[in-house]
Amino acid sequence: MRIDIITVLPELLTSPFEASILKRAIEKGLVEVHMHNLRDFATNSYNQIDDYQFGGGAGMVMMIEPIDKCISKLKAERDYDEVIYMTPDGETLNQSIANQVSLQENIIILCGHYKGVDQRVRDQFITREISVGDFVLSGGELAAAIVCDAVIRLLPGVLGNETSALTDSFQDDMLAPPIYTRPAEYKGWKVPDILLSGHNQKIEQWREDQAIERTEKLRPDLLEE
Amino acid sequence: MRIDIITVLPELLTSPFEASILKRAIEKGLVEVHMHNLRDFATNSYNQIDDYQFGGGAGMVMMIEPIDKCISKLKAERDYDEVIYMTPDGETLNQSIANQVSLQENIIILCGHYKGVDQRVRDQFITREISVGDFVLSGGELAAAIVCDAVIRLLPGVLGNETSALTDSFQDDMLAPPIYTRPAEYKGWKVPDILLSGHNQKIEQWREDQAIERTEKLRPDLLEE
Repeated sequence: MRIDIITVLPELLTSPFEASILKRAIEKGLVEVHMHNLRDFATNSYNQIDDYQFGGGAGMVMMIEPIDKCISKLKAERDYDEVIYMTPDGETLNQSIANQVSLQENIIILCGHYKGVDQRVRDQFITREISVGDFVLSGGELAAAIVCDAVIRLLPGVLGNETSALTDSFQDDMLAPPIYTRPAEYKGWKVPDILLSGHNQKIEQWREDQAIERTEKLRPDLLEE
Repeated sequence: MRIDIITVLPELLTSPFEASILKRAIEKGLVEVHMHNLRDFATNSYNQIDDYQFGGGAGMVMMIEPIDKCISKLKAERDYDEVIYMTPDGETLNQSIANQVSLQENIIILCGHYKGVDQRVRDQFITREISVGDFVLSGGELAAAIVCDAVIRLLPGVLGNETSALTDSFQDDMLAPPIYTRPAEYKGWKVPDILLSGHNQKIEQWREDQAIERTEKLRPDLLEE
């Protein structure tokens, strides 16, 4: 998989891709992530990529021309399955969308910043708009990093233990059951006896019951779907 | 405001706090963000902070003792309003939660990693569990960065233009209207005439209509609430 990220703040995105699972996935050649600084595609001598809103109002708007130039350059080099725009009014990211995106070969992710991009960018170039949730961020960069993390960890070979991702929350529309590790007792707080019993079948049953109970209590909406 | 982040991967979190709005907020002294490497609180010579699950199963669990030591040390130094755990089965972050958290003085954010923390950590030390959405990440670090970004930009003095945050999506349970900037025409794609008209009152009405129309189309659930 190849991911091209277009941003005005590539420096914000360095450390998430230089640590942990994303770093290892890149080193193993399972994914390529390329950052593109939108300022490199500015068309005037001030490297301008944003301007005031037509009609007035606070906040700057990202201009269409530098974005068009950057996307056109990438598209001339290879085919892209999706051109994704990170925006709070996009479809809300969930595990199913992460699964879908993880099956694609080449994607572009455009990070919104300031008040967002000129609407014509969205109308003309964007094939999918994704939000990470109902809250406002100072830019789409962290949202793009979230999408990359959620997607890249699903690529075959990225997680050491193939079964690990399958027991996470949401992969079967259920929350994960409670987990415990040593010591069996700490300051008087004990691990449930069943987990120390060695009865694998009873443990699996307990986990399933706990997962259902926790989902019913915390996220009944997941069970309704 | 002071934010203490407890993580096994502090290096993952460097660049988001060294760029853009978060960097400026820290430099202006409007917020302090401190990273704590959980390994510094390990109790054995291997710097061990995770261990196998009781009852078997894939994935490691973060141990209670190093987390207890780290939180206890911080609590001995000052009072905390919340000890937040980032976990996919927490309450889903939204703008209202971001607003609430932005009013607090001192908070701890514990980043889950691997399969998550020993359940006793959640039962004994955590006052609030927050998720950034219904998807699984390789760790809570990016989720913690998202919370910090959403919260810090709301602190007085952080955004240059005080009115800017108020016209973002979600601050009034509505999506933002479309925005445009120069040029007024690009490759035949034109900015709506109304925005070039100079009639402020008509422009405000158009924006309100567009915000309602867009919210009805894309996120009718926001209007129902």
